[in-house]
Amino acid sequence: MVQRIEILVTLNETYLPPLQVMLVSLFENNPHQSFRIWLIHRQIPDEKLTALAQLVNSLGGQLKPIKVDGQHWTSAPTEARYPMEMYFRLLCANILPKSVKRVLYLDPDILVINSVQALWQVDLGDKMLAAATHSGMTHLVTGINNIRLGTDHGYYNSGVMLIDLAQARQIIKFADIERIIDEHSDLLLLPDQDILNFLYGEYIKEIPEENWNYDARKYPLYFTRSLGKHDLQWTLVNTAVLHFCGHPKPWEAHHDNRFTALYLNYQQLTQRRLQVFAPIDVASSVKPTTASDS
Amino acid sequence: MVQRIEILVTLNETYLPPLQVMLVSLFENNPHQSFRIWLIHRQIPDEKLTALAQLVNSLGGQLKPIKVDGQHWTSAPTEARYPMEMYFRLLCANILPKSVKRVLYLDPDILVINSVQALWQVDLGDKMLAAATHSGMTHLVTGINNIRLGTDHGYYNSGVMLIDLAQARQIIKFADIERIIDEHSDLLLLPDQDILNFLYGEYIKEIPEENWNYDARKYPLYFTRSLGKHDLQWTLVNTAVLHFCGHPKPWEAHHDNRFTALYLNYQQLTQRRLQVFAPIDVASSVKPTTASDS
Repeated sequence: MVQRIEILVTLNETYLPPLQVMLVSLFENNPHQSFRIWLIHRQIPDEKLTALAQLVNSLGGQLKPIKVDGQHWTSAPTEARYPMEMYFRLLCANILPKSVKRVLYLDPDILVINSVQALWQVDLGDKMLAAATHSGMTHLVTGINNIRLGTDHGYYNSGVMLIDLAQARQIIKFADIERIIDEHSDLLLLPDQDILNFLYGEYIKEIPEENWNYDARKYPLYFTRSLGKHDLQWTLVNTAVLHFCGHPKPWEAHHDNRFTALYLNYQQLTQRRLQVFAPIDVASSVKPTTASDS
Repeated sequence: MVQRIEILVTLNETYLPPLQVMLVSLFENNPHQSFRIWLIHRQIPDEKLTALAQLVNSLGGQLKPIKVDGQHWTSAPTEARYPMEMYFRLLCANILPKSVKRVLYLDPDILVINSVQALWQVDLGDKMLAAATHSGMTHLVTGINNIRLGTDHGYYNSGVMLIDLAQARQIIKFADIERIIDEHSDLLLLPDQDILNFLYGEYIKEIPEENWNYDARKYPLYFTRSLGKHDLQWTLVNTAVLHFCGHPKPWEAHHDNRFTALYLNYQQLTQRRLQVFAPIDVASSVKPTTASDS
């Protein structure tokens, strides 16, 4: 019996199209694997959630949208430039139902191209979550981030995180995050990722980036660093999570690297699936779960 | 009601692995389209045909293998360097059952990445078949081939052909092919393709190569020739048949162009599907149709 994998995404309406592509790639490359997709959001309209649920159902999965209104926390963030959604992935342990013990968070700018079972089964030991660092040839970025944030570990990328929710419930506190924003807002370049590293870096287990959070811009670096071993043939067999970091995104004009064609074909596969559901039947609309029901 | 599309492949055992990848891409990118796959061969073992039939069934299609022993023609070819399989695509009208009126021949070194419905419905007018030419920037190759073969039309690629079988039955004669081989064997570089062009070029309707027979090596040429219009974004939406001409093939080491990752992901999808059927159940073996039954 294969265990169900719990996937978490947290985003606003703008990112629904790439989310759909990510989900199609996840299901296509993980046949016979059961998935539940938790979507934590603030204000995605019901009809869009219905269309997404239809897509997920057609792929054999289950969508669990959770609408969060922000009243879970005592105070709203003081800075307008940090949207509420940015907290959701850090605070997911307080939003997801207690019956969910472990969750795999995935950014929407991802293609899943192989099985994620081995990632799901990673032994976290006494750590709260697993994540990869995106190291450069000289670890220069890590060095700068260590000085900037006062940390002594690699700079973890928050795009792929396997989270132990019982631990996260104990360790991650909204008050701490709020305090950091108040005190250090000028230091925070990528707010949620910086907070993850600054406050919680010591609770993170590092997992290999080339397997679980492959930066799609960095093929030449991975190839060179492995002395030619990690060529395309190696990558397409051994990489499960291909992360399209930075800009342009592969759904934008002029994206052109070794993985663009792969991305765009998944976009075609997704659009063909979506055409089947159009026009949306409002009567069959899914009633989204709210955080308090769960 | 969508019309069933009849696909033809003619190959030996060596090309079964890429054929499987081609078929997975065909079905994945043509959902809700019914396909029958005619496989004309000489000596593919039954257990391999069974595995292939299981794959095709799992994709929602039907495999129709036809074993040809060569006794259809009055004499065997005189030159050992031309294997019998090379005739099968040219002579398919004499091998396929008369109930099949039209067939789409596809090489195994192909990915189908969009709908082939518009190709299937091409109006052939009074022509026998539709094919694309692989023109260079200056049509130099066509010029050389015209001199070499004494033709006055583009040099057609025989990797993708939409064939009207009633016409082909009238026009294509084994005796003519045999005579050409006897008389001109030193001129024939790519025997079946040269014969197609030399003997039957006047019966061919040209179709746009970038839609129906895109040479995957030629992205920079297509991009430049279209003044940048045919970028990856255009290609992944408008190209249906991506043909990995030349060497190395994308399943061989060191293949590295803009479509390698796409190919290798389809190879992964295919291998995962095949693992489901292993080990092969010999008892459920498909009885291949022989040419005489059809």
